[in-house]
Amino acid sequence: ANAIMSGLGTTVFEVMSALAREHKSVNLGQGFPDDKGPEEVRRAAAEYLLDGHNQYPPMMGIPELRQAVAEHAKRFQGLDVDWQSEVLVTSGATEALGDCLFGLIEPGDEVVLIEPLYDSYLPIVRRAGGIPKLVRLEPPTWRLPREELAAAFSDRTKLILFNTPMNPCSKVFDRDELEFIAGLCLEHNAYAICDEVYEHIVFEGARHLSLMTLPGMRERTARIGSAGKSFSLTGWKVGYVTAAAEMMRSIAKTHQFMTFTTPPNLQWGAATGLRLSDAYFEGLSSDMQRKRDRLGKALAEIGFGVLPAHGTYFVTTDFRPLGFNGTDDDFCRDITVNAGVTAVPVSAFYDDPVKAPKHFARFCFCKNDSTLDAAIDRLGRYF
Amino acid sequence: ANAIMSGLGTTVFEVMSALAREHKSVNLGQGFPDDKGPEEVRRAAAEYLLDGHNQYPPMMGIPELRQAVAEHAKRFQGLDVDWQSEVLVTSGATEALGDCLFGLIEPGDEVVLIEPLYDSYLPIVRRAGGIPKLVRLEPPTWRLPREELAAAFSDRTKLILFNTPMNPCSKVFDRDELEFIAGLCLEHNAYAICDEVYEHIVFEGARHLSLMTLPGMRERTARIGSAGKSFSLTGWKVGYVTAAAEMMRSIAKTHQFMTFTTPPNLQWGAATGLRLSDAYFEGLSSDMQRKRDRLGKALAEIGFGVLPAHGTYFVTTDFRPLGFNGTDDDFCRDITVNAGVTAVPVSAFYDDPVKAPKHFARFCFCKNDSTLDAAIDRLGRYF
Ligand SMILES: CSCCC(=O)C(=O)O
Ligand SMILES: CSCCC(=O)C(=O)O
Repeated sequence: ANAIMSGLGTTVFEVMSALAREHKSVNLGQGFPDDKGPEEVRRAAAEYLLDGHNQYPPMMGIPELRQAVAEHAKRFQGLDVDWQSEVLVTSGATEALGDCLFGLIEPGDEVVLIEPLYDSYLPIVRRAGGIPKLVRLEPPTWRLPREELAAAFSDRTKLILFNTPMNPCSKVFDRDELEFIAGLCLEHNAYAICDEVYEHIVFEGARHLSLMTLPGMRERTARIGSAGKSFSLTGWKVGYVTAAAEMMRSIAKTHQFMTFTTPPNLQWGAATGLRLSDAYFEGLSSDMQRKRDRLGKALAEIGFGVLPAHGTYFVTTDFRPLGFNGTDDDFCRDITVNAGVTAVPVSAFYDDPVKAPKHFARFCFCKNDSTLDAAIDRLGRYF
Repeated sequence: ANAIMSGLGTTVFEVMSALAREHKSVNLGQGFPDDKGPEEVRRAAAEYLLDGHNQYPPMMGIPELRQAVAEHAKRFQGLDVDWQSEVLVTSGATEALGDCLFGLIEPGDEVVLIEPLYDSYLPIVRRAGGIPKLVRLEPPTWRLPREELAAAFSDRTKLILFNTPMNPCSKVFDRDELEFIAGLCLEHNAYAICDEVYEHIVFEGARHLSLMTLPGMRERTARIGSAGKSFSLTGWKVGYVTAAAEMMRSIAKTHQFMTFTTPPNLQWGAATGLRLSDAYFEGLSSDMQRKRDRLGKALAEIGFGVLPAHGTYFVTTDFRPLGFNGTDDDFCRDITVNAGVTAVPVSAFYDDPVKAPKHFARFCFCKNDSTLDAAIDRLGRYF
């Protein structure tokens, strides 16, 4: 078997969700809403299926969705995107990442990554032959360490891959930080792969800014979005990549042999979603902000240290003030089994969990009030 | 960009389907039915979606589909399969191939392949770091050249990947041939990846036999099936891999970072499909056989040389008897533009199209009678 892949563990989200099912705990681990998602989006997908649109769509995606992705980029980022040559539909953002990494990395290329990081990044970078160069953000501010980032770039850097808004630490990169990253990409002639799946889940009226909008970055950035995250339908596995035509060519060539294409009815549903009014997208972020506050305040009252969360589905907590002395893995198992609430250990988002902070648990707040309240109640009794 | 991926062309199916759309030709190129697929399968998927099952399912697939895959393996191949550790659901057979190849191949491993071959095989084998060893079948019998196959195996062979029933040449491997392949796998301690997406599309009452059923092969074979092909819903992109638990571990580890999972409502629909009665599956093959005969006889009457087709959606034809002197690419473009019917050139299924036979066109017969008759009528007038 392949040494890189067979050496991996099972993804932490799967492990914790299985443990949650086993112990019938309230699952605030893996990030998925328990809301049903917009009615018109689900209806559109069901009707398209029943109408018989169930054969191979075009490899790049159905025109309606690619057009909707381009319009959406204009509406929210002011980007002019050619839907025919610059938009690709994928079977989720995870496939989109694979298409970009297998399509762009040549074995031996260096890849700059920012820790903590989403758990699919390193395995795929390595399997694609890339050599990871990790730069670590430090809590509680998770500020970009500029010198270290600059030092991670070299003339062997092929690309930087990062996530904003950022899972797990709920950081939203600001213009200054993005300009610094852009400067390094330009200086080293590197690509940027921007995982922007939480683009609509930002708080306090902050606005997500895409690196692609900065001077010089239009031609060297691939943006990845997710219908699952934007419409609370994580099981749909509909993602999209936007990149300049030249860059897109290698990404699409990879996609055609990774999954070839994505179910047409879910594409149709996603197109309906991307055309929803501004009110929908504003409602999504204000709703999530309310949920963040509901869970965050309660966790603070119980005694957790609660770190700021500027975006995403997640809040990071420090459990040491509760007097728990084990690792984050111990903590997350302990509360699953004994309190009936599941979280995920933040050290799972580091290359070497031994050298990672071991005192943070990530809670997911993208849940109905009754789910959040049940979790709060259980944790309150336990501690 | 990555040299292997960026050097690829666009898949022939996409190219010819785009040309077909442009010229409004009858598209007998890319293999997809124009039938709607079983009503109960589509309804099941639509209802599951409307009922709100739209969040991440388990990474390996929903239990109902994994159980149905195991039951189906028992019913049709007599295999005892443990649905929990030996079945993985994927976003189509294309992803399943990627999971197996990236999960099993170590850079430098040799991979035995049989030409003509499906067009995703070579790019992914190469991108995974494998060194292809190609063995070629010769028309019109497409018999397995045993000496050459034996010579292609070595102590560096990691696996053989092949397709039965075989696209494009419509060969169904018989027990003797499979035993010969099994013998080589055992002798060289190699895996076999069996792309069996056309398992239910075999003719003349022949039965598809899986290599996995042969002595010694249970532990070293991965079988790949496709709901798209078994239920005439090619756009669904629901595939499944069956492999012994030990082998499955590396494949599943790869899957978790390739797409992570597959839409739950389409999984639910596929589970409904796999549990359809024997009559459904018999009807599928007899229906396809009738279509094969309808198209094949008519093409022969028009003057094509029509090769035997024992399975799949496809019939291979020799166009030289019509007096056409160009290549198969020329021919397929010519009939698209001038006759209004699209086929695909068989040389696209070879590593080096220059050294491939250049006088075969593949026609797809998995279409309604009216579609087949329109194509026949147009070709009849043109020649
Ligand atoms: C692919 S399952 C993980 C979902 C997610 O994005 C998260 O929980 O971080
Ligand atoms: C992935 S599109 C190709 C469909 C197919 O299996 C074929 O036409 O051979």
